[in-house]
Order: sequence, then structure tokens, then C-alpha cells
Amino acid sequence: MQKRNIRVVLAYDGTCFCGWQIQKKDRTVQGEIENVLFRMHGFRVPVTASGRTDSGVHAAGQVINFHTPIKSIPAERFALALNASLPGDIRAVKSELSDDRFHSRYDAVKRTYRYYIDPSGICLPQYRNYVVNFRQSININRVNACASCLLGDHDFTTFTVPRDKSKTRIRRIFHAVFYTDGPFIVFSITGNAFLWRMVRSIVGTLMDIEKKNGSSGDFSDILESRDRSKAGTTAPARGLSLYKVEYNE
Amino acid sequence: MQKRNIRVVLAYDGTCFCGWQIQKKDRTVQGEIENVLFRMHGFRVPVTASGRTDSGVHAAGQVINFHTPIKSIPAERFALALNASLPGDIRAVKSELSDDRFHSRYDAVKRTYRYYIDPSGICLPQYRNYVVNFRQSININRVNACASCLLGDHDFTTFTVPRDKSKTRIRRIFHAVFYTDGPFIVFSITGNAFLWRMVRSIVGTLMDIEKKNGSSGDFSDILESRDRSKAGTTAPARGLSLYKVEYNE
Repeated sequence: MQKRNIRVVLAYDGTCFCGWQIQKKDRTVQGEIENVLFRMHGFRVPVTASGRTDSGVHAAGQVINFHTPIKSIPAERFALALNASLPGDIRAVKSELSDDRFHSRYDAVKRTYRYYIDPSGICLPQYRNYVVNFRQSININRVNACASCLLGDHDFTTFTVPRDKSKTRIRRIFHAVFYTDGPFIVFSITGNAFLWRMVRSIVGTLMDIEKKNGSSGDFSDILESRDRSKAGTTAPARGLSLYKVEYNE
Repeated sequence: MQKRNIRVVLAYDGTCFCGWQIQKKDRTVQGEIENVLFRMHGFRVPVTASGRTDSGVHAAGQVINFHTPIKSIPAERFALALNASLPGDIRAVKSELSDDRFHSRYDAVKRTYRYYIDPSGICLPQYRNYVVNFRQSININRVNACASCLLGDHDFTTFTVPRDKSKTRIRRIFHAVFYTDGPFIVFSITGNAFLWRMVRSIVGTLMDIEKKNGSSGDFSDILESRDRSKAGTTAPARGLSLYKVEYNE
């Protein structure tokens, strides 16, 4: 049976999900999407994502793909078809036909995450699930000096959890910067890939250093130590969003 | 007993509230605040607001006041004291001592509401409770030509509900404009006061006119008709937020 490989850009509010990956009991993003695809097809259609997001982590530009024998829906209309049945906390932003061999995880070359921080001391109600209040002033120049230590290839063992079973813990960071966006401070980081909890561990450690008026030298030492015990607190999931995934076209 | 009159700026996410005004059974913003004040005082402390907001309507700058005999908390610290016990969907942004005669409703001279519209056809999950998707293109110049008809003194009978029992339906509009904010179109309106459902009725009517490629003349006719049956659909509550309340100081 001839199947088309459909690629979809997904946005979701991670608040009420136990992460991306399908689970027997808990509500997950993959579970909701596969439920909708099951109803459309009458059989299970497995979905692949660019990467798993943890419980409470959001996405603005997660990329998924699946193979479908349905001929009656043009590739570009799959987003609408999915949205008709998906719950309001998941939206298909865009869908398109991709090459048969396209794989949303293996083919991804860059992932960008954003972490939202509110330094004001009061987290406004409508942002409470998307922004973390660090109750401290943040010197943008100083945290950016720290962030620049992340650029290039590094062994990120310091910033992952022992459960991470990646073959190598070396990742390449292309871009890492803090900037202000209205009342918020945003940390944007782009890398070829990320270890488990890596972004949240980096953000938590940077905030700990900032609280102690530490320097980029302190941060560089922690990064290069490859010693998990030197990392700071892992920042809460709700501040994090998978913003964009890029492919070589 | 000497009492201080405390004025507080409040922000709330209206999604899970049956509006501002206290009710016997349903969860309301006033109810939550009076609960916290009751626990602080041991007796009921009535709270006054600049105006009631409907079920599902948000606030970024609601103003309330209450009289308290508590001496141990400086006026500026009441915001923190309230936030310690308030649920996450209500935040006290600021508190201060005000004149004994200050009344948050009677003394308010300007109220500003904002209404958030998403013309993209897809409402991103994290905005789904704050933005309304009108699934239509909006010509900013044309809707602004309509909005300018609202300026000055008008009888707004067209844009309220029969249940509104105001003595007069004349209100003065100081400012009414549509502008773009990222992916959204925002309608901002400032008036001396508003009738029940007035902003939502105006927005709904403007969107109906825009859908039909109507003109500002059409809108002006509807406004001046003082005929409720000429108004369009009432726009959903979730797009509306009480943005600011102003006083003569």
C-alpha cells in the first residue's frame, strides 16, 4: 500500500501532559496524536518526533512525521484535519508532504529551545504556566558572558542526569543568548541536539551563579568539570519551550 | 478602630472564575480575595473593585480597595501578604495607602480594556484562553475607521444587554484603536465607564461588519440606531482584559 510521509509542525501547552512520549496511563502529546490518527485510520499509525519533551515542557515548533495511506486528504490539509479532533492544548500549525525517507528525529540538524524568566518578583496569572519567576535581578551582560562559554563542542555531562543513555555527551551549540522580551528575560539556545534535562540544568546553574554574583569563569569551570554534582538546581519545566527544529532541505 | 484604606492593583486569569462578583456557590475573584482577607482578619472585610468583570474576562490592572485595622503590615506589603495566600490565577501587582475617602469604583475616571484577536486561523495552545480566533483577514485601516466612530459621547444602547440597569446609557470614549501585536490584533478602548457587555458587543459587531466588507458608515448607523437588534454577535469573554483603571490623583 502506497503511503505518504506527512511532516507536521506542532505547538503544545505542556502543562497538562506527562511529556511527549506515549504512556499506558498518563496523558501525553504522542498519545493524543496517535489517538486522533487511530480514529482517522482505523489502525495504529506510529508518530515520530524530533525529540521527546519532558512533562510540563511546551513546544511552539515541534516537528513530527507519520506515514499514511489516506489519499483523500491533501498533505497541507492534514493540519486542519488533526486540529478538528485534537484537544485545544495541541495545535498542528502546518503540514506538508515530505520525502519518504524523511525522519523527524534523525534528520534534524538544529534544535532551538527558549526558556522564559520573569525577574519582576510577581508572575502575572496568564503567564504562570509558561514563565519562571527567579525573584532576583539579572545582569544581561554577565549572563551572556556565561552563555558564550557554551558555544562550540563540549561534553555536557555536567548538565545532564545519570539516566541519560546517549552514546556521547558531546553536543555542538551554535547560539546561546539571553535577551529581554517585554517584562521577561528569555534564554535562547540552538544546538545540534540536547541531552536529557540539559537546557533546564544550564538555566538553573546560570541563575545560581547570577544569584552569587559569580563570573563566566565560574560557569566555564563547572561546564568543563564534567561533574554533575557541580551543576546547580534544575530549572522548572514550565519555563521551557521547544521553539524550532531545523533540517537540511 | 482606626482603619487604613488600602488600594491594590490586581491581575487575574478569568478562565476559571465566574467573574468578579462574589456568589454563594461559584468561584469568583472577589470571593477568593475576601476569603484571604477573612483569614488575615478573622472577620469579613468587604472589597470594592473599579468594576465587575464577567465570567472568563481577565484583568491586568483591576483596582480594588478595602479598609483594614491591621497595623503590622505596611500598605506596600499588602500585595505580598495577599499573594502568599491567593491562588496562582490572581496576583496582587501593587498595593499602597490611599485617602480614606478613596473608592475604586466611584473615583475611577478612565477604564481601558483590551481585546485580543488572532486572525491566523490557528490559536496557539498557550494563548487559547486569552485570544479569540476570528478566522478572517482584518483590514486594520478599515476597522480603525469604524472604531473612530466610537470617540466622544454616545448613547450605547445598541451595545449593551437589556439587563443593564444603568441610569444613563451615555458613555464617553477617549480612545479606541486596533493595532497589531506580534501575531495578534488588539483592540484597545478607553472610556469613562462601560455598560454591561459593551466592549464584547462592539468587537463582535465590528468583526461582523469586517466579514461583510462593511464600512464605517454601516457601523455608525448601527451605533446611532440605539437598537440592540442591530448589534452583531457578542465576542467571547476570553479575548477581553481590563487593562488599566485611572483616577484623578
